Amino acid sequence: MHRADVIEILDGTHPRVGRGVALAIYGLIVASAVVIAVETLPDLSERARGVLQGLELVILAAFCVEYVLRLTCSAHPLRYALSFWGIVDFVAVVPAVLFLFPDLTTVRSLRLLRLLRILKLFKANRALDRIAMAINRVKAEFLIFLFIACVALYLAAVGIYHFEHLAQPEAFGSIPESLWWAVATLTTVGYGDVYPITVGGRVFTGVILLIGIGVIAVPAGLITAALAEAGHDRPEATPLDPDPDKRAGGPGAQTAPNPSNTEDT
Amino acid sequence: MHRADVIEILDGTHPRVGRGVALAIYGLIVASAVVIAVETLPDLSERARGVLQGLELVILAAFCVEYVLRLTCSAHPLRYALSFWGIVDFVAVVPAVLFLFPDLTTVRSLRLLRLLRILKLFKANRALDRIAMAINRVKAEFLIFLFIACVALYLAAVGIYHFEHLAQPEAFGSIPESLWWAVATLTTVGYGDVYPITVGGRVFTGVILLIGIGVIAVPAGLITAALAEAGHDRPEATPLDPDPDKRAGGPGAQTAPNPSNTEDT
Amino acid sequence: MHRADVIEILDGTHPRVGRGVALAIYGLIVASAVVIAVETLPDLSERARGVLQGLELVILAAFCVEYVLRLTCSAHPLRYALSFWGIVDFVAVVPAVLFLFPDLTTVRSLRLLRLLRILKLFKANRALDRIAMAINRVKAEFLIFLFIACVALYLAAVGIYHFEHLAQPEAFGSIPESLWWAVATLTTVGYGDVYPITVGGRVFTGVILLIGIGVIAVPAGLITAALAEAGHDRPEATPLDPDPDKRAGGPGAQTAPNPSNTEDT
Amino acid sequence: MHRADVIEILDGTHPRVGRGVALAIYGLIVASAVVIAVETLPDLSERARGVLQGLELVILAAFCVEYVLRLTCSAHPLRYALSFWGIVDFVAVVPAVLFLFPDLTTVRSLRLLRLLRILKLFKANRALDRIAMAINRVKAEFLIFLFIACVALYLAAVGIYHFEHLAQPEAFGSIPESLWWAVATLTTVGYGDVYPITVGGRVFTGVILLIGIGVIAVPAGLITAALAEAGHDRPEATPLDPDPDKRAGGPGAQTAPNPSNTEDT
Repeated sequence: MHRADVIEILDGTHPRVGRGVALAIYGLIVASAVVIAVETLPDLSERARGVLQGLELVILAAFCVEYVLRLTCSAHPLRYALSFWGIVDFVAVVPAVLFLFPDLTTVRSLRLLRLLRILKLFKANRALDRIAMAINRVKAEFLIFLFIACVALYLAAVGIYHFEHLAQPEAFGSIPESLWWAVATLTTVGYGDVYPITVGGRVFTGVILLIGIGVIAVPAGLITAALAEAGHDRPEATPLDPDPDKRAGGPGAQTAPNPSNTEDT
Repeated sequence: MHRADVIEILDGTHPRVGRGVALAIYGLIVASAVVIAVETLPDLSERARGVLQGLELVILAAFCVEYVLRLTCSAHPLRYALSFWGIVDFVAVVPAVLFLFPDLTTVRSLRLLRLLRILKLFKANRALDRIAMAINRVKAEFLIFLFIACVALYLAAVGIYHFEHLAQPEAFGSIPESLWWAVATLTTVGYGDVYPITVGGRVFTGVILLIGIGVIAVPAGLITAALAEAGHDRPEATPLDPDPDKRAGGPGAQTAPNPSNTEDT
Repeated sequence: MHRADVIEILDGTHPRVGRGVALAIYGLIVASAVVIAVETLPDLSERARGVLQGLELVILAAFCVEYVLRLTCSAHPLRYALSFWGIVDFVAVVPAVLFLFPDLTTVRSLRLLRLLRILKLFKANRALDRIAMAINRVKAEFLIFLFIACVALYLAAVGIYHFEHLAQPEAFGSIPESLWWAVATLTTVGYGDVYPITVGGRVFTGVILLIGIGVIAVPAGLITAALAEAGHDRPEATPLDPDPDKRAGGPGAQTAPNPSNTEDT
Repeated sequence: MHRADVIEILDGTHPRVGRGVALAIYGLIVASAVVIAVETLPDLSERARGVLQGLELVILAAFCVEYVLRLTCSAHPLRYALSFWGIVDFVAVVPAVLFLFPDLTTVRSLRLLRLLRILKLFKANRALDRIAMAINRVKAEFLIFLFIACVALYLAAVGIYHFEHLAQPEAFGSIPESLWWAVATLTTVGYGDVYPITVGGRVFTGVILLIGIGVIAVPAGLITAALAEAGHDRPEATPLDPDPDKRAGGPGAQTAPNPSNTEDT
């Protein structure tokens, strides 16, 4: 068995093994996300905590093995180690070491690095590449409209502050506090924790909303349009794709000597 | 009168009878939905309950008759019984039996099967086919963006948990609980039952909203666009279409010997 | 001065008089809407009420004069009286009679007929025609998607009722009451008066929102698209158009002997 | 060094100096906005207030210098002084004088003129021109749909008033008060401070929402579409553009004798 075969198996592009191992890795990533979420539940029993830590250890071990395999089987180990995905793979296993020194107080915040594993969901199917391309295509428009949206939020906050801060000094006590109202209002979330009560503030809100909703919606709409367009170009490779043959290829599929694309990026 | 005529009359495609019977069946479906809703009202009088049960019995009897007619008059009874609409028609009358054994405690949950009758509204006019086709067309994009939306919701929940769980341990006590905030916020519903109160949490909310609204809106937008496009292709057959001739055809309309399409699907 | 000139002056299409009289009528309509709104203020002084009644009398007199002029100067008085705009003009002045019999208790609800005057704002510039055309174009799609939206609201209400009615019997006591939650949630208004508190209800809400927002947005989106398209075709005639010449035409503008289109529709 | 060079340096179009000075001015504008916001914080220490006033003085001095430089180095000083940007530059430094007479009670409201400085962010990169062009292109549609949106808000307010004012006289006490509900509801903000509680009011809200959301969204959507389109035409000049060469041009870039466009507009 060649070293390149190992990489192909991990990537789910091996002609005979198929996507089995890659799907198992996906499953471990999702399991890791669930473990991270569940272990924050305040009323967990000791036994449940033990199970979660055991699960976490298994997941960590699996990612360690994956990292070592990718490193040793890569045609260019150093190039892989310094590539984007190599760094992600490495950082995703760093917390493994911290389990050996549980007394360290810095453990907690470093454990958040495990969230980077979620990025790996976007690796093999190139969804992240596509999203990056999509965002890159609308970058200039996105930045300028994000900038206009920020100015609109700022001006809305200044305006409502002048209408409301005398009537509601606790909610609109300053312009930075009024910004929270502007964000919640112009995105139309409207929690209802702060809202204008003066006639002037309400008229101002109405005018701002009729014009401002569109301005705030532009950055979001640009991302949406770009993603939709990008998804239109190559929609065949979803992480939930039930057909493994599309990426594994048949046994007679033409395979280059070094098809692993994780080293070259 | 041929057996095929009965199917045509039920489908509303009979050249002479027209849509009368089909519209009556539609009316019974809507009446059934209203009965299901009204009988949950807590302060119904005994008499009102009696009326509702009577109505339900009439509706059940009508659907039983329809099912038996479709089964006996079909050219291929077994094929109809095992087809999608055959199963829906059957399940919609199963609760009829339960009226004979009112002591069964499983009655209540089985009664929810009556909701399947609503599906029958989409049968004759092929609206469901069209929707299924529309969803099928955008399935790949829909799944990948639904996946991205889920990741965005998860990351938003993790982020707000770390900003807010010390300040509001009852609302943001864990990441799963914070997910509820993420859903209510990124969809811009904003009930106002949970919202950030720390400066960090509010800034995080603002950033997440400016970017995240678009991501969450993509799956919804894809369904919308596909439905709108599908509706554009064949908009002539609405369930509220006032003109019965469009589907009934004139007396001289060319009718195939076995035009019932409920058996062949 | 010919009778046709009077109609042209009222319509704002007279070559020499221009839009002056038509704009004054618009102003009276807006004033009428403001009076209708202001007279509901609970803490009005007697004097303010007197002023409002005086204003209302002046407005009524003006519309009476306009109706009589249109009726007497029309080439086909009966055709005008029975046309859509003729009826609107007539109903808008009916409350005038009620001022003579202030003891009638039916006055209050009949006074709401004054709201029909607002329709007159859409008359001369044909904006209403355009909107009617736009809605007519998407009527079939609009009806089918409105129907789908209603089914989605109904199913959401049934679902949330089964998840929440035991935990919150006062808010989700029945399916009709749950419909209110479904409307406020799927339109993303989210008042926050009712929201799910059980885990099942919150998960259900998340799933329903990711899919349902799009479905609910379709009817609204169709109207929007149709209006935007219609506005694109003939955007030159807005009620706020600052340039009267566009509709009045120059003195040498070619004017047909009977250009008033209020009689022919 | 020629006088035109000074203008070019201030505009960030000088071939050798590049965008350095222009970016510093942008930084001062942003700093000014931050100062305006921060100085409204109610619990500032005396020392923090002193720092803010010092910062404000520095910013004012810088803008005074910029204004004097632009005035003296311009080829047509008077034309610049009376141009749009000349007036903005002037008004942005007027509050400088007020620091010399701190006893004036009119200072506070005049200080809001400093907000005009934010406009200067849109000057050099012509973003404002583009936005103005975009808005100009959809002006007619925007006005007519804004008008329709206002009518929709008014009719929604009248309707909800008649359904709710007896049940909730404090929230829906009059039509003008009900307008606040209409704004918060049809924009889907839904603060939750006022909402219907009667069955009629809730049904009315549902119907209004299914139709009205689209109408209210049209003006916002028109602005969005126009901005997105405008951004598509010339997206290369964002205020955050990391590449200064695009606007500074190379040393061999062809420069007209008087390329400053601030005087000619």
